[in-house]
Amino acid sequence: MPSGEDRLIAKYFKPLATAPGALGLTDDAAFYAPPEGYDLVLTADALVSGVHFFPDDPPETVARKAMRVNLSDLAAKGAQPAGCLLTLALPVGIGEDWLRPFASGLQSDCDLFDCPLYGGDTVRTDGPLVASITAFGILPRGTMVKRSGAQPGDVVIVTGTIGDGALGLAVLRDPDLIARWSLSEEEAGHLVGRYRVPQPRTAIAGLVRTLASAAMDVSDGLVGDLAKLCEVSGVSARIEAARIPLSAAAAKALAAQSDRIEAIATGGDDYEIVASVPSAKWPAFRDQARAAAVPVTAIGEIVEGREPPQVVDADGKALVFAQGAFSHF
Amino acid sequence: MPSGEDRLIAKYFKPLATAPGALGLTDDAAFYAPPEGYDLVLTADALVSGVHFFPDDPPETVARKAMRVNLSDLAAKGAQPAGCLLTLALPVGIGEDWLRPFASGLQSDCDLFDCPLYGGDTVRTDGPLVASITAFGILPRGTMVKRSGAQPGDVVIVTGTIGDGALGLAVLRDPDLIARWSLSEEEAGHLVGRYRVPQPRTAIAGLVRTLASAAMDVSDGLVGDLAKLCEVSGVSARIEAARIPLSAAAAKALAAQSDRIEAIATGGDDYEIVASVPSAKWPAFRDQARAAAVPVTAIGEIVEGREPPQVVDADGKALVFAQGAFSHF
Repeated sequence: MPSGEDRLIAKYFKPLATAPGALGLTDDAAFYAPPEGYDLVLTADALVSGVHFFPDDPPETVARKAMRVNLSDLAAKGAQPAGCLLTLALPVGIGEDWLRPFASGLQSDCDLFDCPLYGGDTVRTDGPLVASITAFGILPRGTMVKRSGAQPGDVVIVTGTIGDGALGLAVLRDPDLIARWSLSEEEAGHLVGRYRVPQPRTAIAGLVRTLASAAMDVSDGLVGDLAKLCEVSGVSARIEAARIPLSAAAAKALAAQSDRIEAIATGGDDYEIVASVPSAKWPAFRDQARAAAVPVTAIGEIVEGREPPQVVDADGKALVFAQGAFSHF
Repeated sequence: MPSGEDRLIAKYFKPLATAPGALGLTDDAAFYAPPEGYDLVLTADALVSGVHFFPDDPPETVARKAMRVNLSDLAAKGAQPAGCLLTLALPVGIGEDWLRPFASGLQSDCDLFDCPLYGGDTVRTDGPLVASITAFGILPRGTMVKRSGAQPGDVVIVTGTIGDGALGLAVLRDPDLIARWSLSEEEAGHLVGRYRVPQPRTAIAGLVRTLASAAMDVSDGLVGDLAKLCEVSGVSARIEAARIPLSAAAAKALAAQSDRIEAIATGGDDYEIVASVPSAKWPAFRDQARAAAVPVTAIGEIVEGREPPQVVDADGKALVFAQGAFSHF
């Protein structure tokens, strides 16, 4: 006589447990045989309804965001995804109408990123939904890329475009911005889509591992996260605001409201990689990233010093932001 | 300029991150080098305030229970603990007065079970506190003990005593039971202590791995959990109610109210191991478990059939329970 939890797991999550060691989620634990000579890379990130996503966001995108914020960490460390565990705290009002598309969204990303489900837990809460994922990846022993390691003279690079997630959140909170920024429906959709479903840069994890001197993913804002990387590395950085790569939609928002540079540079929810790359390796990094269809842009350089990174405008004047990095605390 | 979250982590959780690969929790992820020829065993369990513990339970015991329910799964699978990740969803009202003893309780168990913290996440919620732990352990490749594998003729064994956790919960809900069951203060404290801080049987994980044919931990009730083991193994079982090992306190509760056998046999929160052991190996299992100071008791045997396990009384009559296993759903 299976319990309600067992039924839910069998119905919705067992199809995601494609690894033999997951035992179809029918056991208390799973096993995983790491390849010899490899390290595991471990990360955990949780999303809370009303904090990290909107309660009425599509369940598919909630699942994919929960997965991808973790995959983004693995990619920034140079690791290939290997598996994940999901803990769901479900409010009483959440039923199968929500779980079905949630599991479907998760499955599509488990498949896409070759990161099957190995286990987890499902509990009831009378608070908001919490989706907590622990993901693990692998890389050759001793090669995890850290926040430390950046050297003066290294090129500071970012993947993709910056600011879309924060601007997408702004649009969801105030739809009038769509008209104010003269965004097409497609452009507004792009920003919201980037907030809801980040794009982990798994495709260049190997490049990060072999060519970057330090790296992390941009989750709390480019400026604040680069400051963390610099602090641990014992260096500073100088980046040019004009070189921060923007989507067409973000460029329109900035053209309409120049002070949106702050949301772009410090807002977070980017899930792109910021890395330092020795200048001699930058051409190879750039070319191979492009070959992997991942846009990368040099935005400045690592410099000596211990002060926080400077963001300078076209005239070389330092921009001052009220908030360096996003924090819920 | 560290965020509030970074400060909390550095202050309370960094001391638990003693493994070199945890990098003092200053990076986005941690690395772990598994010993060659070993598998990882992965498990995740979450506790919700008001569901799995009382909001006014001591934070130390909340932390230890969160840790130990995971360690119990590892032990039942035959694995030695290797590390853990903690995701905490904290209500706004929870401050350092709560976090300090929580971290202290967690640290004592990380040390005691040699299971250091490798990472996690701290998020805010306007609902109840959720403490979610993912733990990983190791064992020689291919040796994880599963729920499947029990054979007719195997001895059904349990560690420790059964029912204390469920009776401890009953006492917390209705303190009048202390007088009704004629419990001393110490006996009542024993039951409550067993509810709040389970005892994972890590000390005999190696025995389970080498001598048991199937095993799992008893979290949702002995009868229901044994039924799950039997179902996956394609067998049935016959256990004798009189042989279920009881603490002195549980024996007094049962003497006062004979129908408490149901809470004992099906209530859950035991976090003991139930296993099937081939009869030829049982004497070695028993002797070595005793040498490791872990009580083990034979309570019946695996039999052919597909029906749920029978619990029989002293006259050989089958007991019927309203609820086979506890479920929050």
